[in-house]
Amino acid sequence: MKETKSFVPRWREEAPKKGSYRSIFKWGNPKEFKHPNDKLYRELKAQFGMTDGDFRQRRREGDEPVRAPRPGRIKKNQAAALAKIVGPENVSAEAYDRVKYSKGKTIEEAMRLRAGDAGDVSDLVIHPRDKEDVRKIVAYCNAQRIPVYVYGGGSSVTFGLNPSGGGVTLALSTHMYKLVELNELDQTATVQAGMMGPAYEELLNNAPEKLGAKKRYTCGHYPQSFEYSSVGGWIVTLGSGQSSSYYGDAYDLVVSQEYVTPAGSFKTLSYPATATGPKVNDIMKGSEGSFGVLVEATMKVYRHMPGNRRRFGFIFPTWQDAIDAGREISQGEFGMPAVFRISDPEETHIGLKLYGIDGTVLDTLMTARGYRPMERCLFLGSAEGEASFSANVKRQVKKICRAHGGMYLTGYATKKWEPGRYRDPYLREDLQDYGILIDTLETGVTWSNIHRVHQEVRAFVKSRPATICMTHASHFYPQGTNLYFIYIMKTDDVNEYKAFQDGIITAIRKAGGSLSHHHGVGKMISPWMEKHLGREQMDVLRTLKKHFDPRNIMNPGGQLGLDLDKKKIR
Amino acid sequence: MKETKSFVPRWREEAPKKGSYRSIFKWGNPKEFKHPNDKLYRELKAQFGMTDGDFRQRRREGDEPVRAPRPGRIKKNQAAALAKIVGPENVSAEAYDRVKYSKGKTIEEAMRLRAGDAGDVSDLVIHPRDKEDVRKIVAYCNAQRIPVYVYGGGSSVTFGLNPSGGGVTLALSTHMYKLVELNELDQTATVQAGMMGPAYEELLNNAPEKLGAKKRYTCGHYPQSFEYSSVGGWIVTLGSGQSSSYYGDAYDLVVSQEYVTPAGSFKTLSYPATATGPKVNDIMKGSEGSFGVLVEATMKVYRHMPGNRRRFGFIFPTWQDAIDAGREISQGEFGMPAVFRISDPEETHIGLKLYGIDGTVLDTLMTARGYRPMERCLFLGSAEGEASFSANVKRQVKKICRAHGGMYLTGYATKKWEPGRYRDPYLREDLQDYGILIDTLETGVTWSNIHRVHQEVRAFVKSRPATICMTHASHFYPQGTNLYFIYIMKTDDVNEYKAFQDGIITAIRKAGGSLSHHHGVGKMISPWMEKHLGREQMDVLRTLKKHFDPRNIMNPGGQLGLDLDKKKIR
Repeated sequence: MKETKSFVPRWREEAPKKGSYRSIFKWGNPKEFKHPNDKLYRELKAQFGMTDGDFRQRRREGDEPVRAPRPGRIKKNQAAALAKIVGPENVSAEAYDRVKYSKGKTIEEAMRLRAGDAGDVSDLVIHPRDKEDVRKIVAYCNAQRIPVYVYGGGSSVTFGLNPSGGGVTLALSTHMYKLVELNELDQTATVQAGMMGPAYEELLNNAPEKLGAKKRYTCGHYPQSFEYSSVGGWIVTLGSGQSSSYYGDAYDLVVSQEYVTPAGSFKTLSYPATATGPKVNDIMKGSEGSFGVLVEATMKVYRHMPGNRRRFGFIFPTWQDAIDAGREISQGEFGMPAVFRISDPEETHIGLKLYGIDGTVLDTLMTARGYRPMERCLFLGSAEGEASFSANVKRQVKKICRAHGGMYLTGYATKKWEPGRYRDPYLREDLQDYGILIDTLETGVTWSNIHRVHQEVRAFVKSRPATICMTHASHFYPQGTNLYFIYIMKTDDVNEYKAFQDGIITAIRKAGGSLSHHHGVGKMISPWMEKHLGREQMDVLRTLKKHFDPRNIMNPGGQLGLDLDKKKIR
Repeated sequence: MKETKSFVPRWREEAPKKGSYRSIFKWGNPKEFKHPNDKLYRELKAQFGMTDGDFRQRRREGDEPVRAPRPGRIKKNQAAALAKIVGPENVSAEAYDRVKYSKGKTIEEAMRLRAGDAGDVSDLVIHPRDKEDVRKIVAYCNAQRIPVYVYGGGSSVTFGLNPSGGGVTLALSTHMYKLVELNELDQTATVQAGMMGPAYEELLNNAPEKLGAKKRYTCGHYPQSFEYSSVGGWIVTLGSGQSSSYYGDAYDLVVSQEYVTPAGSFKTLSYPATATGPKVNDIMKGSEGSFGVLVEATMKVYRHMPGNRRRFGFIFPTWQDAIDAGREISQGEFGMPAVFRISDPEETHIGLKLYGIDGTVLDTLMTARGYRPMERCLFLGSAEGEASFSANVKRQVKKICRAHGGMYLTGYATKKWEPGRYRDPYLREDLQDYGILIDTLETGVTWSNIHRVHQEVRAFVKSRPATICMTHASHFYPQGTNLYFIYIMKTDDVNEYKAFQDGIITAIRKAGGSLSHHHGVGKMISPWMEKHLGREQMDVLRTLKKHFDPRNIMNPGGQLGLDLDKKKIR
């Protein structure tokens, strides 16, 4: 086929078929899509040596109906006992449900599901109605030694909810999605763990109308998975959001929590601060379902003042300059920007195409001024909070960026970025329909180690021919930041893909980055945990695990590296 | 004796005698004093129905030389083995050392020492030279089942270092007081745990001259005990400082830590944030020597910009108004003031005397404007950080305070308060020389519960005749604050004093305050821990204790309520 300027691949516009594998792995709303634009399309062809011909036929779309997985191992009397707790309408042993509630959103899962391989599957999906149900289920499963997995929003990219041991999966968002209390004096909201981001934020934003409150609020937590993740999931995986540099990570937002564990149920106390020994409230955060089930949480909320948002964008001559500016901003003590991201040269190169800046007058101007492609770096951000506070943040950011050679680009790029902030994952399916994988790994780094991690990890990714590696720094702190690696590659071979991913994780660990900044560990990164934290710290986690869950029924199968087969440790 | 305007009690001006009990319980520099001023003196006489005659003769000054305590229980060969580890010059079984390094700064200890009662005493004081020494000592003591206590700055007001089980006390500040590394890129300082506040701050402030650094820094942590507390002590007791509303509590300042425990030694990793399961770095904070010995910590530091400080002060018509303003400021999202304290009517009444405002034109003006004595409340504060940030904080604070009926008093009162910010504890000895006790308890409270805690605890304190109860809110958060109760009473009876203190702790717990906001638990508040946290949470702490210290050699005797005699639980 001749390459023509006008050729556009037939990106899929149909929703997945009901009951199909695709309906399980496809990101987000079945009827929503985000297609690569023409510039990205051409970039991909160039990078992977592909032609329009390679984009004529989609393949392995996963439209086949889900086949019955292996028979469940839950005995009839056990299933009946569980149905008695929650009501038969809240228990399902249907093949489709068993697969759906067993899968997260890793690329590996998508690859396998496209090939009709469901992998580990739950035996029984249960939809608890309330925390009392959860208490009874956990007690029963503990007595019967039935593994218990928790499905919140289902957006795990670490196999965090993978039912390695079969057993039951608790779908928390079916019924346990309610806001229990908004406390305006304390500026806290108590929510059931299965509450999803949009419903939570919507109630807070409209608190006067919906809850009879005096003010409007915001939750302050906007991960890319916002629309498809639950408040409980944010906490147990230690998530971060796109504005966490200002609002804090999920860890910082939690005032108190209520857990159901095999060792008993408890609610931590709500204090702004307390000095009564090691904080059990904090010990539970990040436990990823290994200690018990988070059923309710009291979260900090913030005043909703969208009118005070101030946007900015800059182009820097080099990554070093941009990072220096980012550090100076983070340590400047005038408050932190909310959105705050710096793209490295390769991400900037592609980002300018995505945001429609590439090839415009602005592009020409930047290049003329010495901001050269594949050297220059884009910095997007915005400030929130009280009006004069956010105005001052913007003023200081501009001052620092200019001092580091940055050229001000107005708030245009940030404004272009905002509406699509949750939409990038939709690209996954389009690309994978043509054999292209887009995936990410991320790591927490100190300022003094950021360049080593960036260079070494990038070098590993780029050592594979025809592989895109885009990196940005986001989630800023006075002591460092998060490096987010996005890699794009062409392969149909799940084993090659997995080996490559393993190589990146190993490169991150060797360079001294943390194994994860905000995606958690799950069963994907767990083989690296022992080497990363060291035996003594892993022993602490194992001790807690044994205390809460002596029979290892809570999310067994290697979660957090706790009950990992010794052969798997890397 | 006739009451005369000119009578001034002979407040003691002599340093304690060398080797005396007084040299152990006296606060701070032996040669420094802070005497009650004339207004406070007259207030005390009025409150306690005392006359000048009662202030003619000081008593129980504790000038007697420390008597030999009970014989040590460390065997000769054990002492020799320990001396071999650290060198004989770093081991002491002298009576004076054994008592000195066994005592903190509770009023109860002072009362008993004045009477020549040394209470629980260490068998052997060891001055480890470095963390390797600590490792060897802990290993040896674990093998020999010898209790190990840690003495940092010795300012515990909770019997946190009380050697209930005899054994050895490690004096960490003798040799382990060094700054190991200043990392300007990461804005962190790595220090040995025994480093004391002033030495630490002095190095940071003068980093260019002393460390060849590019910038000046500050540690951000200024507890009232600043001059006599160690960095390690701040962390393991979960301390807060007078500017913590801005800089964060000790908990927030810690990037990583190195511990020596009977179960092994380890250093947590330094990341600005990480999502690799429950954070062992946080689990160790607040462990109060029960899990092991903190030997080194990497702390956040801040840029030293004292020129940007903006001070302010207000008088409010009522406590409710002042607290409402405090909450509005804390939730206003323009950044937090650094110093931030609101005195209740009784503290305001005495504070205006102490700061020399009582009886001045300003006092007349305030009263004329309707700010009436025993109703009005004083609010002192200051803002730090980048110049326009701190200016904006002050601007917003003024706006909010005015909207809540506050009258601006300029920065005068804060300026008067600052130089004496660490000096109030010196009042203790003067008052106690005449049988008057001044003591404090503090609690973390949410905004929605602050008035209940304030009223119920105050009601209990005031139920004792002739007892002063001054309260202030300090350490502010969007979700609440800390209530600091200062009570002044006349008694020589240590049992009456203890029963009264117990009553206050019980009142705090019943009203729903936390058992401690920043003094820690020690062996004083431990009997209330089980009821406060509940069995499930205490089980978590006990599990960790058993993991790190299976033979219970680390700070045994009820610390944190971990190995508490069941009879003592309240």
